Amino acid sequence: MPCLEIVAVGTELLLGQLVDTNTARIAAALAAAGIDVYGTHAVGDNRERIAALLRAGLERADGVVTTGGLGPTVDDLTKEAVCDALGLELRLHEPSLRAIEAAFARLGRPMRANNRKQAFMPEGALVLENPHGTAPGFVAFRSDGKFVASMPGVPREMVPMLARLVPWLRERLGVRDVIVTRVIHTVGIGESEVDHRIAELFRRLENPKIAVLAHEYRCDVKIMAKAAGEGEAQAAIEPVLREIEERLSGYVFGYDEQTLAGAVHALLQSRSEMLAVAESCTGGRICALLTDVPGSSRSFAGGVVAYENSVKVGVLGVDEEKIVRAGAVSAEVAAAMALGARERLGATLALSTTGIAGPQGGTPEKPVGLVWFGLADAQGHVRTRSAHFPGDRAAVTSRASIAGLAWLWEHLRGTERSAAGHRRVG
Amino acid sequence: MPCLEIVAVGTELLLGQLVDTNTARIAAALAAAGIDVYGTHAVGDNRERIAALLRAGLERADGVVTTGGLGPTVDDLTKEAVCDALGLELRLHEPSLRAIEAAFARLGRPMRANNRKQAFMPEGALVLENPHGTAPGFVAFRSDGKFVASMPGVPREMVPMLARLVPWLRERLGVRDVIVTRVIHTVGIGESEVDHRIAELFRRLENPKIAVLAHEYRCDVKIMAKAAGEGEAQAAIEPVLREIEERLSGYVFGYDEQTLAGAVHALLQSRSEMLAVAESCTGGRICALLTDVPGSSRSFAGGVVAYENSVKVGVLGVDEEKIVRAGAVSAEVAAAMALGARERLGATLALSTTGIAGPQGGTPEKPVGLVWFGLADAQGHVRTRSAHFPGDRAAVTSRASIAGLAWLWEHLRGTERSAAGHRRVG
Repeated sequence: MPCLEIVAVGTELLLGQLVDTNTARIAAALAAAGIDVYGTHAVGDNRERIAALLRAGLERADGVVTTGGLGPTVDDLTKEAVCDALGLELRLHEPSLRAIEAAFARLGRPMRANNRKQAFMPEGALVLENPHGTAPGFVAFRSDGKFVASMPGVPREMVPMLARLVPWLRERLGVRDVIVTRVIHTVGIGESEVDHRIAELFRRLENPKIAVLAHEYRCDVKIMAKAAGEGEAQAAIEPVLREIEERLSGYVFGYDEQTLAGAVHALLQSRSEMLAVAESCTGGRICALLTDVPGSSRSFAGGVVAYENSVKVGVLGVDEEKIVRAGAVSAEVAAAMALGARERLGATLALSTTGIAGPQGGTPEKPVGLVWFGLADAQGHVRTRSAHFPGDRAAVTSRASIAGLAWLWEHLRGTERSAAGHRRVG
Repeated sequence: MPCLEIVAVGTELLLGQLVDTNTARIAAALAAAGIDVYGTHAVGDNRERIAALLRAGLERADGVVTTGGLGPTVDDLTKEAVCDALGLELRLHEPSLRAIEAAFARLGRPMRANNRKQAFMPEGALVLENPHGTAPGFVAFRSDGKFVASMPGVPREMVPMLARLVPWLRERLGVRDVIVTRVIHTVGIGESEVDHRIAELFRRLENPKIAVLAHEYRCDVKIMAKAAGEGEAQAAIEPVLREIEERLSGYVFGYDEQTLAGAVHALLQSRSEMLAVAESCTGGRICALLTDVPGSSRSFAGGVVAYENSVKVGVLGVDEEKIVRAGAVSAEVAAAMALGARERLGATLALSTTGIAGPQGGTPEKPVGLVWFGLADAQGHVRTRSAHFPGDRAAVTSRASIAGLAWLWEHLRGTERSAAGHRRVG
């Protein structure tokens, strides 16, 4: 099976100043194209070290894909190192020079001498145009046919170039198979329970392969099939997808690119419901997740971030005495917030949150991480539940936001249940 | 100068299913400790390939730090590969076995045979306890004194182990220098302008070194000093920090861990002001940024996410006729939203946003990316400005949120100005 290595160039990667997302992006694109990756590397802006890594990579693999080090500065040495590793010289590439001159003319900026450097290419290289910047990419060849494909490091420039490089790589390496991936999204069920329910499939299947990926308060199952064509791969995935769906019945909220907020909006719209949100401890995060979804204005009226008690009273109409008696973090106040939001924002359905995000404000009875949720429905009923979320301020608010959306989703599906760690009252 | 390599183990890294953040974290910790990194690598769960990479790394460097592949499954092969590379055998480590048994007893879960595997260690290894999981780490030695230090791949387990490993590495490698880093945060000034203002310093300085890091709508300057002690490094940084501050005067909102929202809260609290926010297109993101700051309830009353026009009218008291006449995305409505939020949420100061986040809803006069902001101040004055943000829905809403906070910060500082791309009206 043909395989490649990936090399990311840049001293900032060795200093940990930048998390390298390019390598994962290239690896994912190669995996989807049926091309195996033997290993990946990061190296500083050092000509000898880059060249040594390329030479070693070409011993193990059919070719190396690099990202970074193609800029105009003296620190940018990838091209020189590629020539060293392949035994080539740099030559002026006239079309690239004209493209760079045109780019500077367009920007109305003077072109400096060091930008001319970007028009030099390894002899015999296939040049990859860069419509999004001044650094062209290229594929340079060793006499035995092994090659190095080099792209810029700026993601905005690299991503479109990668999309054009991958089909060329498939052709060059004679890869015929494609890999198709589908993702099943679940909420309300833990990773170990998902694992338990599909463990037998996991052991039995080789193609398609399945993998469980845990996120904060959510869990994905990934199904990957390799086949000669897209249709064949989809056909292999189909029965596995159905089988997993059945085993995780009641927890699957979506597939592939769909988000939990997107699934909530789809259900709201299919039921002609209009949602309002009243947030205290989650501070606007639930509203932000809901409005991430394009077209969300069709099923989201708005929200109130009722941080001060006076806003709970004045804007949402919560009875002040109730706050004094039960405390702002209580089932009573969560219920009143949801009812107030539903009425005052003219919605059919409203969700509320009130809790202790920390680090201060916890007590033995109401510790940091305790959150009360309220849900006022189309029939005018209101229910509350509470949960205790572990972690720091950011973890508590982010988990509580997902948990709130999960309750909405369960309610809209009619599959509501008492999740582990939840008490229901009212 | 002593140097190390970093190896991340896991087939999921080669498939691009996971962005490797561990490598950057280890690299940053080593850089801060004055330890050079020669290169970093990722490799699949393959015993021969891991061992070959370790052998090659030990030729180039004094030691290798690995992360991942220490779990209980048959895929976890880092320990075996380390033994192959160093010429060692695995031996049962009694204290680790007892710790693993105790961990399972605590969890009330049965210990399976494969967990026993985690108690085997390379002979002569220094064992690193793992209070956050069942996989201990270790440092194993080659006969010539070169070594491999292995840690688990789960960040929650790796990060505390790394904090204990780094001082040991400094001692072992005889490193005496420390590296201290300070960060200056700016807003309202572009990367190229920052670059222009400090270019001369950039060229002149070797220690401390400076670097410019561009973020969305913000720009950081990093100052790194290497010295024999923390005090000496801080003393070297001080004059450079002052010089850069002077050159970027009026744009510096904070240092190191401080966020723009944190700087806004500090100014609000020092002026005893209480803030309210009315968000339309930003959908709760400004509230979320403000409530990320611990203690924000002292200077943040709350917010209204007025997505539907009926919420702008009903909750914020915006004149419905104004919306019909000028449109929801207009200076008039932004002003009315800010005034309404200030009054109805009982605040002294209020910020509002209304704009077109896309992808739908744009017109030639009001294109996707257009956002109007309103600011109602303690004197009862209200002003508006607009900006046009490039990018998709996520980019527009995130940039508009930062730009809104930036205007608040400028206003509170009394250094308000018409930023590039802003028109001011009203």
